[in-house]
Amino acid sequence: MTTFDAISDRLAEQVIEVPSWAYGNSGTRFKVFGSAGTPRTVQEKIADAAKVHEFTGLAPKVALHIPWDQVEDFAALQSFAVEHGVRLGTVNSNTFQDDDFKLGSLANPDPAVRRKAIEHNLMCIDIMNEIGSTDLKIWLADGTNYPGQDDIAARQERLAEGLAEIYAALGDDHRLVLEYKFFEPAFYHTDVPDWGTSYAHCVALGDKATVCLDTGHHAPGTNIEFIVAQLLRLGKLGAFDFNSRFYADDDLIVGAADPFQLFRILYEVVRGGGYGADSGVAFMLDQCHNIEKKIPGQIRSVLNVQEMTARALLVDADELAAAQRSGDVLAANDVLMDAFYTDVRADLADWRSSRGLPAEPMKAFLASGYQEQIEADRVGGNQAGWN
Amino acid sequence: MTTFDAISDRLAEQVIEVPSWAYGNSGTRFKVFGSAGTPRTVQEKIADAAKVHEFTGLAPKVALHIPWDQVEDFAALQSFAVEHGVRLGTVNSNTFQDDDFKLGSLANPDPAVRRKAIEHNLMCIDIMNEIGSTDLKIWLADGTNYPGQDDIAARQERLAEGLAEIYAALGDDHRLVLEYKFFEPAFYHTDVPDWGTSYAHCVALGDKATVCLDTGHHAPGTNIEFIVAQLLRLGKLGAFDFNSRFYADDDLIVGAADPFQLFRILYEVVRGGGYGADSGVAFMLDQCHNIEKKIPGQIRSVLNVQEMTARALLVDADELAAAQRSGDVLAANDVLMDAFYTDVRADLADWRSSRGLPAEPMKAFLASGYQEQIEADRVGGNQAGWN
Amino acid sequence: MTTFDAISDRLAEQVIEVPSWAYGNSGTRFKVFGSAGTPRTVQEKIADAAKVHEFTGLAPKVALHIPWDQVEDFAALQSFAVEHGVRLGTVNSNTFQDDDFKLGSLANPDPAVRRKAIEHNLMCIDIMNEIGSTDLKIWLADGTNYPGQDDIAARQERLAEGLAEIYAALGDDHRLVLEYKFFEPAFYHTDVPDWGTSYAHCVALGDKATVCLDTGHHAPGTNIEFIVAQLLRLGKLGAFDFNSRFYADDDLIVGAADPFQLFRILYEVVRGGGYGADSGVAFMLDQCHNIEKKIPGQIRSVLNVQEMTARALLVDADELAAAQRSGDVLAANDVLMDAFYTDVRADLADWRSSRGLPAEPMKAFLASGYQEQIEADRVGGNQAGWN
Amino acid sequence: MTTFDAISDRLAEQVIEVPSWAYGNSGTRFKVFGSAGTPRTVQEKIADAAKVHEFTGLAPKVALHIPWDQVEDFAALQSFAVEHGVRLGTVNSNTFQDDDFKLGSLANPDPAVRRKAIEHNLMCIDIMNEIGSTDLKIWLADGTNYPGQDDIAARQERLAEGLAEIYAALGDDHRLVLEYKFFEPAFYHTDVPDWGTSYAHCVALGDKATVCLDTGHHAPGTNIEFIVAQLLRLGKLGAFDFNSRFYADDDLIVGAADPFQLFRILYEVVRGGGYGADSGVAFMLDQCHNIEKKIPGQIRSVLNVQEMTARALLVDADELAAAQRSGDVLAANDVLMDAFYTDVRADLADWRSSRGLPAEPMKAFLASGYQEQIEADRVGGNQAGWN
Repeated sequence: MTTFDAISDRLAEQVIEVPSWAYGNSGTRFKVFGSAGTPRTVQEKIADAAKVHEFTGLAPKVALHIPWDQVEDFAALQSFAVEHGVRLGTVNSNTFQDDDFKLGSLANPDPAVRRKAIEHNLMCIDIMNEIGSTDLKIWLADGTNYPGQDDIAARQERLAEGLAEIYAALGDDHRLVLEYKFFEPAFYHTDVPDWGTSYAHCVALGDKATVCLDTGHHAPGTNIEFIVAQLLRLGKLGAFDFNSRFYADDDLIVGAADPFQLFRILYEVVRGGGYGADSGVAFMLDQCHNIEKKIPGQIRSVLNVQEMTARALLVDADELAAAQRSGDVLAANDVLMDAFYTDVRADLADWRSSRGLPAEPMKAFLASGYQEQIEADRVGGNQAGWN
Repeated sequence: MTTFDAISDRLAEQVIEVPSWAYGNSGTRFKVFGSAGTPRTVQEKIADAAKVHEFTGLAPKVALHIPWDQVEDFAALQSFAVEHGVRLGTVNSNTFQDDDFKLGSLANPDPAVRRKAIEHNLMCIDIMNEIGSTDLKIWLADGTNYPGQDDIAARQERLAEGLAEIYAALGDDHRLVLEYKFFEPAFYHTDVPDWGTSYAHCVALGDKATVCLDTGHHAPGTNIEFIVAQLLRLGKLGAFDFNSRFYADDDLIVGAADPFQLFRILYEVVRGGGYGADSGVAFMLDQCHNIEKKIPGQIRSVLNVQEMTARALLVDADELAAAQRSGDVLAANDVLMDAFYTDVRADLADWRSSRGLPAEPMKAFLASGYQEQIEADRVGGNQAGWN
Repeated sequence: MTTFDAISDRLAEQVIEVPSWAYGNSGTRFKVFGSAGTPRTVQEKIADAAKVHEFTGLAPKVALHIPWDQVEDFAALQSFAVEHGVRLGTVNSNTFQDDDFKLGSLANPDPAVRRKAIEHNLMCIDIMNEIGSTDLKIWLADGTNYPGQDDIAARQERLAEGLAEIYAALGDDHRLVLEYKFFEPAFYHTDVPDWGTSYAHCVALGDKATVCLDTGHHAPGTNIEFIVAQLLRLGKLGAFDFNSRFYADDDLIVGAADPFQLFRILYEVVRGGGYGADSGVAFMLDQCHNIEKKIPGQIRSVLNVQEMTARALLVDADELAAAQRSGDVLAANDVLMDAFYTDVRADLADWRSSRGLPAEPMKAFLASGYQEQIEADRVGGNQAGWN
Repeated sequence: MTTFDAISDRLAEQVIEVPSWAYGNSGTRFKVFGSAGTPRTVQEKIADAAKVHEFTGLAPKVALHIPWDQVEDFAALQSFAVEHGVRLGTVNSNTFQDDDFKLGSLANPDPAVRRKAIEHNLMCIDIMNEIGSTDLKIWLADGTNYPGQDDIAARQERLAEGLAEIYAALGDDHRLVLEYKFFEPAFYHTDVPDWGTSYAHCVALGDKATVCLDTGHHAPGTNIEFIVAQLLRLGKLGAFDFNSRFYADDDLIVGAADPFQLFRILYEVVRGGGYGADSGVAFMLDQCHNIEKKIPGQIRSVLNVQEMTARALLVDADELAAAQRSGDVLAANDVLMDAFYTDVRADLADWRSSRGLPAEPMKAFLASGYQEQIEADRVGGNQAGWN
């Protein structure tokens, strides 16, 4: 197996973007529980996100969600972030919460609603220009609940038209990242339900359009690492939304439900050239901390990605290739499992110490008193959530 | 095949209980859309529910959800219902929306929270006494999101204790109906996730405890009609919550996603003695009309159940048994499919006319002007929803 | 709703190709049950298939599976088929039963095995030339059972190379139809697991490559009609393999498990221009009659497709479009359901009679004595199966 | 976390029963690949199984499958096993491969077939008496492929009757272990599809009847460890059939698909008192080595169970309980994950050495020359498989 020393520098390349909305409240249709210390403003969200980076060194970027994070002066917001040690990153457009979007946004049968959805995305590109962001991420809640409710084929054409207009407005260094999702909130058909649909639209749009793979957005049993390998091969994997799930789109902490799956995904990322600063593949989290504390939840998440990335990097590529070539099924599997079962935590603690980071970020954060402070300070106001 | 005439009287036995909450707004974690004419009070909900019965003759009972439908004077509410031509039915307890219930209710690790959950159910029994209701329906959102979060086995014992205390408070003619659900809102384990768990608890409780089968609460691919047959055989099928789904617990209109499945379920109900006034099996709806109009959505739902019940009753039991005994797979399947493919709609229209009901309830309701009237009248106030 | 008269001529366009292997024995890994009258030779399979066409008028073509249907003189086999009233159709290559293919065929790590797999497909093209067939259908059992067993990305490149060489050998009027499958016989990853992968390869190959959609080859809950609509829109839907399933790739009689799904699929086929002689979309069956009699099983299957096609054609497109445009969810759904719930069987019986076909093909076949005759005649020899 | 020393003795209690059929060939309905060195006789299977025990010390028992392992003199077979260092264990009845069982065995509509199936099980009890085995394991392939094919409810009664007759023939120290399976080979309904059904029958039968949980026999997404906890609580968990799966009943090496799931299962086993000699819970493997070598496949399997048992034993119960009581979701999860991520392999190697076992069983076996020898010796004859 590869030694930890040999992968040390590669680990330093890791950048994980955290979502501003992870620090607000979230829940299910049954209940959104409040929690002490929850941010009331986008500035408080950024301050919390900055703590994740401070303690881990892994999360220098914060993704925005518009309109949840709408402010008058985005340049000032960027300055605020930089003062806290992070930068604003991907801009996520939201076309699913206005009453107009009840029957869809870019695929809505009503041209006026489609126009509104396009304009919202164009406005997001304006924000990208203000903050120097490169990525516009589009996730569409579009779909139908009942067979016959709308014309599936016509909706694809409307979608293609809307995306084309948005794409045309991108700057030279911009990207459109199109996310797909198996189902929810639509329960019969979804307009971008699978990687194939996102891929076909991105190919039609052009080089600046790539696919976003949310690890929770697949049918039961789907082999996600295969999709990773396929999209990397096709040159269209733009970003990950990491999280984990046992059932549907549960949005649990990445690696919590199936750590081995996360390992296999990261192995294919590394194998396919999707890891590192020049890969063009953005690592993002998209999770819901419904019942656990949010900042520690995010710290746990980026650490899970880091620990599993370390294991993926440890796979001995030559040994594996040799076993594969020889057709020795058990030996090839063993090479992979050997890396997975390696406990990298002590090595990572040393690695962090050597870089001026807390050896144990979770403990260091819990001991820092930050959580107690925000719980004491943030009294009153409206806790941030998905609205 | 059996003739429609031969099943005419049996159709007259059908009673479907509608949920008060179907008339309020519902949605997903992403958005609850408002809609014109939505009730602001429980009285308005009952008035709407009464319309479903008026136009179909199928829905004489309205289920309550406490605290959503909490009022000071339940006897007065019952009178209000009766004046509108319906009666209050099953009382549904709700132990998932108080902040205390973040980590569960009857299975919560904190005894004070468990006490609170028990008291809530005892209060629901008081309401049952006030309105003369026989059924307490318990659906628990209890579960955990992360492995290790709580002790699965200990939670079962706490659950058993809590249920026992509630059960002990039931009156002589009361029933406790325990619903199970595969997942959501808990995403790792659910404390009553399958019929086996609900059944085991009901057996331990006694004769007054029975299982509620919600048709949307199963793992993908589960053969629901088998569970129906099994619970009927074991004498523990107490009630249905009807709805339909393509993915998770989508709560679409019953019969909308898989009409053939609804047919198979109703066939097993009829076959196993679960149909009719004396069967002890309550038919209820539990649906979400997130984007469609609610009263027509309910009318469509009860009609779907009625139409499919008619088809199930049309199955020629003798012919089927003969084909089954002979081992003729295709012939036996054909007997069943013959009934399913029979278009019963014209016969049902005649049947309704002969009983003084509108031949086409949906059209009659749409022509009645009721929807326009409530949309005009119900301006201002807080539209009812899941809170 | 559209009248039956209005769709009468369109029904006459329907051609369903039946698979030679449906007449042989099939089963599960646990057991392949024999059955009286099963063909011992490809000629007997064709004779049986011809009966399906004789009684239904729907199945003038028989697909071959090589090497199961290997003969010395394919021109003579075509003549034999024509004498029986049918023609040989699609040629299915088989690269999963030789010991060499244990670790895959076109994606095998061993170049010698890949060569063998390519040569087998080239030989199938020779057979196509001999019989005048236009379609080479490729389904690959390729995949791995264990993570790490082989390099997922490298396998895609090998696959692409192999397909390219086969594609290059196609004649001007030939097509390569690439089937995808979610899983089985590989249990970790499959090399062509989804429509996106098949589509990406077909695009890379060129215009003569199209996707084959087997209705049983998807993850649980997948919206298949969406894929139909998408592939039609992208111009890459080449063929269907019809069957049905409750769980995995059960290969039950088409329409048996979820008739409403079959209806929705056929509606999208009609809607998207995939129906009829000039559509370029081949309708094929791919089923296993493990326990039911095979010829009646095939007759039931083509009738199911015909009955559901009739219902799909009955959908009133204008009425549906109007409801969709108005955003009336329930009304739009009702238009679709109205066609689905229409009992077309009596009209179809008349339609058949008027075209010189038995009004009730199943009854006519059972009364014909053919089954009894082959059960009496076909004694001894080796019953055909999957080997 | 608990120390390895503290669990050392408990690891010595572990007994895993291996199935005789794992050493024969297996495959899918598409192909059963042969492999060099495969046993031709039950004696050769036992000899191979004995090697697994010799190198691991974990597998002193071999389960039989009747009639696959039928011999004239079972006492002699037991002596043969003992000479090789193992003993014969559970007797598995097989009522799914005779032509008579095409439509089921204990639930068959034909009383003569039911009689035959009962007699087969009684004969298995005779074998148990001959070899001193305590467990009769019954897995039934019974079910139907098409709705209507047979009467689901009537089949339950037939099943109950048949089981009762078999149960009555058990000796004082015998157990009947009833396995359930979600689907396959039946594709519409299965007569014992879930733990609830198996449990209800076992309760009706009596104390000597318990449930067998095959880890691959559940619907997608099912929380298996919950079922473990529930059955232990109810006193009805009799045995495990270990294996793993990504999709359906893939029968891959235990722990290969989802090692974390195996950990969670074993944690609940330990937690619920299901671990160790006196627990009454038998650990068995039930796997298919379709493409990998069989003896190393079995060695890998028992080692996977051992390694994961060690991790499960390492969980600090007090620390976990404290975190659970405090409602600290992340802390409780961390306690569990800490044990899971601990690399126990070096400690286990030392543990083995100290007990006279090879530190690295897999390497030791590969170096032993046994595989080469059987490949050279076992030429000719019919390789054992599922028939």
